[in-house]
Amino acid sequence: MSFTHARDLTIEWGDCDPAGIVFYPRYFAMFDWSTASLFAAALGLPKAAFTKKFGIVGIPMVDTRARFHVPSSFGDPVRIESTVEKFGRTSFDVRHRLMKGDVLGVECSETRVWAGRHPDDPERIKGVPIPQEVIDAFG
Amino acid sequence: MSFTHARDLTIEWGDCDPAGIVFYPRYFAMFDWSTASLFAAALGLPKAAFTKKFGIVGIPMVDTRARFHVPSSFGDPVRIESTVEKFGRTSFDVRHRLMKGDVLGVECSETRVWAGRHPDDPERIKGVPIPQEVIDAFG
Amino acid sequence: MSFTHARDLTIEWGDCDPAGIVFYPRYFAMFDWSTASLFAAALGLPKAAFTKKFGIVGIPMVDTRARFHVPSSFGDPVRIESTVEKFGRTSFDVRHRLMKGDVLGVECSETRVWAGRHPDDPERIKGVPIPQEVIDAFG
Amino acid sequence: MSFTHARDLTIEWGDCDPAGIVFYPRYFAMFDWSTASLFAAALGLPKAAFTKKFGIVGIPMVDTRARFHVPSSFGDPVRIESTVEKFGRTSFDVRHRLMKGDVLGVECSETRVWAGRHPDDPERIKGVPIPQEVIDAFG
Repeated sequence: MSFTHARDLTIEWGDCDPAGIVFYPRYFAMFDWSTASLFAAALGLPKAAFTKKFGIVGIPMVDTRARFHVPSSFGDPVRIESTVEKFGRTSFDVRHRLMKGDVLGVECSETRVWAGRHPDDPERIKGVPIPQEVIDAFG
Repeated sequence: MSFTHARDLTIEWGDCDPAGIVFYPRYFAMFDWSTASLFAAALGLPKAAFTKKFGIVGIPMVDTRARFHVPSSFGDPVRIESTVEKFGRTSFDVRHRLMKGDVLGVECSETRVWAGRHPDDPERIKGVPIPQEVIDAFG
Repeated sequence: MSFTHARDLTIEWGDCDPAGIVFYPRYFAMFDWSTASLFAAALGLPKAAFTKKFGIVGIPMVDTRARFHVPSSFGDPVRIESTVEKFGRTSFDVRHRLMKGDVLGVECSETRVWAGRHPDDPERIKGVPIPQEVIDAFG
Repeated sequence: MSFTHARDLTIEWGDCDPAGIVFYPRYFAMFDWSTASLFAAALGLPKAAFTKKFGIVGIPMVDTRARFHVPSSFGDPVRIESTVEKFGRTSFDVRHRLMKGDVLGVECSETRVWAGRHPDDPERIKGVPIPQEVIDAFG
């Protein structure tokens, strides 16, 4: 996949812990919205609209891993670069790189599911085939 | 109202900011769950069950205020005491006191709405009358 | 005070709760960073730098109140307008207005302290006089 | 390592997203405190005390991975079982299993560093040797 999305953000006081650096679960919240933003950019629709259009509940996480190379602190400007690495039939892999200027601060990989309501139980969700239109949007 | 609910919790590392004390928005998250726990205790049903039973979407916040008297840090045991101060027709007032032993750390007041789906637009919510059964449960 | 600071942000999936709207404690996290951004803009220094320059630990919250008029959901663009309403000797009042276009979504008032280390106990903090240079920066 | 620590918690409304299930970054916050609790239990000291005793800044995360098998929703009681899998010279591996009754909901692995202040720059941190006393406490 060649489509890449980048967004710039500033680390906030409330993202940081008593050691003065980002409390790492906050990075996952940033990456989660980066994935939503990546799909929104590729599909030309915000998350609420593309989930509705394709009749899915969301794109829940199955497996994620992050490596923390260089810490960040409040006030630091960072950039998150995100791309889909692979589309499967009902799941896909995303990669994020959080950059501090030219320095790689954090890298994260994700496997998510393209999830609809379970046909037998609306309380449950299940993976459904990713439409070709979605895959094509990532070029 | 005489019904009071207390719950004990421990301040976590991730609740605290670079000054080493609780990042105050986290207190509101604690109080939010204390209100849910207060109603669950009074009604004898967890939040998911009582909202379903009474056909409401939730009990969203309209107005809240907190005063921070004594800070807490990670590892500190605290107790939150919660009570409904007043029931109106479609809204109600809650008061929380976060105690560090005998010391009042934080006090918070809330006005919330007993909210159902708007009859004309399922995307919107509106206040609906609080059932007498709910009020009675608070004695 | 005439100095006002505005910042634009987008409500994220992770800011929202099972009712599909912003979990209100997240608004306080947004307002907290708006206050930091307001001072950074007025003083021409990011928070880490202005706290260091003026020898303070931070600007902890003493009392805050928010009223929630119109809910927001993920993907919604919002603007937070912030201003200092009053400077006291060691404390100050801030007001935030979260706008959805022309609609007032949330309003929040804060009283914070200009806080240094307690001279008798470095583990404690205490209000210290706000420098005239800081007050002047707000015009 | 044979030492295992378990703690019981209830999923809160504010832990959940618009799909009605736990927003996965919140799991990492839960696991972070489980690791702190695991060390506190093994060492017989809360986190603030054991970091002080051993002269470290903290135990920051280097690499973490989680797999999400079964979602949880607000009100769900869960148990997190945590253990150190391996101690290295300056780093260690932790494993968490979040159980919903007998069902494995989430599993998480962590590599963390036993971190002190960098001798040449107090703003930076570096891995320092894990004391034998710490390793022995895990039996």
